Amino acid sequence: MNKLLIVGTVAFDAIETPFGKTDKILGGAGTYIGLSASFFNLQSAIVSVVGDDFPQEYLDLLTARNIDISGLEIVKGGKTFFWAGKYHNDLNSRDTLVTELNTLADFNPVVPQNFKNADVVMLGNLHPLVQASVLDQMTQKPKLVVLDTMNFWMDCALPELLAVMKRIDVITINDEEARQLSGEYSLVKAAAKIHTMGPKYVVIKKGEHGALLFHNKEVFFAPALPLEEVFDPTGAGDTFAGGFAGYIAQSENVSFENMKNAIIYGSNLASFCVEKFGTERMENLKKEEVVERLKQFRALTQFDIALQ
Amino acid sequence: MNKLLIVGTVAFDAIETPFGKTDKILGGAGTYIGLSASFFNLQSAIVSVVGDDFPQEYLDLLTARNIDISGLEIVKGGKTFFWAGKYHNDLNSRDTLVTELNTLADFNPVVPQNFKNADVVMLGNLHPLVQASVLDQMTQKPKLVVLDTMNFWMDCALPELLAVMKRIDVITINDEEARQLSGEYSLVKAAAKIHTMGPKYVVIKKGEHGALLFHNKEVFFAPALPLEEVFDPTGAGDTFAGGFAGYIAQSENVSFENMKNAIIYGSNLASFCVEKFGTERMENLKKEEVVERLKQFRALTQFDIALQ
Repeated sequence: MNKLLIVGTVAFDAIETPFGKTDKILGGAGTYIGLSASFFNLQSAIVSVVGDDFPQEYLDLLTARNIDISGLEIVKGGKTFFWAGKYHNDLNSRDTLVTELNTLADFNPVVPQNFKNADVVMLGNLHPLVQASVLDQMTQKPKLVVLDTMNFWMDCALPELLAVMKRIDVITINDEEARQLSGEYSLVKAAAKIHTMGPKYVVIKKGEHGALLFHNKEVFFAPALPLEEVFDPTGAGDTFAGGFAGYIAQSENVSFENMKNAIIYGSNLASFCVEKFGTERMENLKKEEVVERLKQFRALTQFDIALQ
Repeated sequence: MNKLLIVGTVAFDAIETPFGKTDKILGGAGTYIGLSASFFNLQSAIVSVVGDDFPQEYLDLLTARNIDISGLEIVKGGKTFFWAGKYHNDLNSRDTLVTELNTLADFNPVVPQNFKNADVVMLGNLHPLVQASVLDQMTQKPKLVVLDTMNFWMDCALPELLAVMKRIDVITINDEEARQLSGEYSLVKAAAKIHTMGPKYVVIKKGEHGALLFHNKEVFFAPALPLEEVFDPTGAGDTFAGGFAGYIAQSENVSFENMKNAIIYGSNLASFCVEKFGTERMENLKKEEVVERLKQFRALTQFDIALQ
């Protein structure tokens, strides 16, 4: 069975949307990536850090999904990373209300021995130095390294981000971040410029407007599924990335053709994530539902025109 | 050969984008629809009105594309409808600088005798009473009636718009207009509500984010082609509608499956329209280029995942 190594936050989130609000619930990029990737046939491990305020039931939830948490450090007397945010009415933008780094401030990732030869590495959104440290620990070159990042690191740690970008295969960022990173408004030009910074594959996430996968002169587009209601967008991007990395890890195929399938799976899984608050929908999601929705994705975009 | 009847403005436009500006050039919804539909094997006619300031070369340009202009009234001593607009830097929004209705103010559409039995009617964006008047003149029920409209008529002539909507098959509007017309934020809910107002098919145009086709519980999505540069978005929506209506008229097939192809063709043609100012690109476009780009649309969205 192939191995997927995930680094990313495991956290508490408090979320407010026009549909309601939550207390502190399970959150974090690593959590969403791990839950999403657990729908594939693979061995996965999360490298992360929490405080001893982190409930055992959340740890059990991860291990029940066959996620190795031996690289999830639990700091005695420490507090878990906490984020609180409030979404605006259109759900496309949000205000961050609280960011308490807590144990994340001094996070020093340690890759479990038996994942130092992982086939695929998914570097969730974290300080680029943490992402680089994980790559430093690999004893065997992974078949694919995927990196997710955000504007915050472009503002505060650009040299470190540019350095780790030279060591990865795929970058996933959103449209605004792609524009910021490249200085280009056109996403086609932005992707071309980001290619020159290292990643052979550039995935640009456009939220409800889908995602684009660029590779040299080729481009593929995966739509987001049009939904009656988006309940809570938290974790959608991480769920997308987890689906992408999980599908690649399972299939052992890093071709562009196969990456098309991977971003369709990413979109598929993300379309469930937003249907409930936090991780709720991902926790209860069944594999048959994912396969059923794949048919909807087919119907949504597949056409058959004779070239005349 | 099948007949397509088009009603829409034939006009002067003056356009400013971040890439430059034009003097008064050929414009108008009817013009863009007509040019776009001329890539299909059909007989088309434009019903519209201009003043005698409208240059013969523009009329020649339309007839050279095999567009019947016997329903294009030329008002002696009248002035042609004129619109001037300036696009913002992102090209997604614009300010209208000038709107001179001129001869359009008293436009009384007269459908040419030999188009009163047209197979497909494309009602371009105009006062809903003008759109209704064209339908009143048909001697034979068209196989398909497509209506394009905009927020202006929702604000100023809603009862008339709702009345004509009961008499059509397909409505094309943009996402913001769909939300305004339905009072629903979710485009899935908006389309469902618009269905109840009359149209069996609802096409929601999202500009650079593609277009959605809704029919009962089914939905199809056509992406916009990611372009290095969008030069001028003027007429893209009309070109899309003209490609849609033209393809349907040519193929004599009003099934949902065939409408999928029609909106791909609409997106295809619109992707050319935005590459140059005004109608320039559409005037010089060759059929082989359209077929070639169809391959790009295929590569952009077609995937092959085994259901497992």
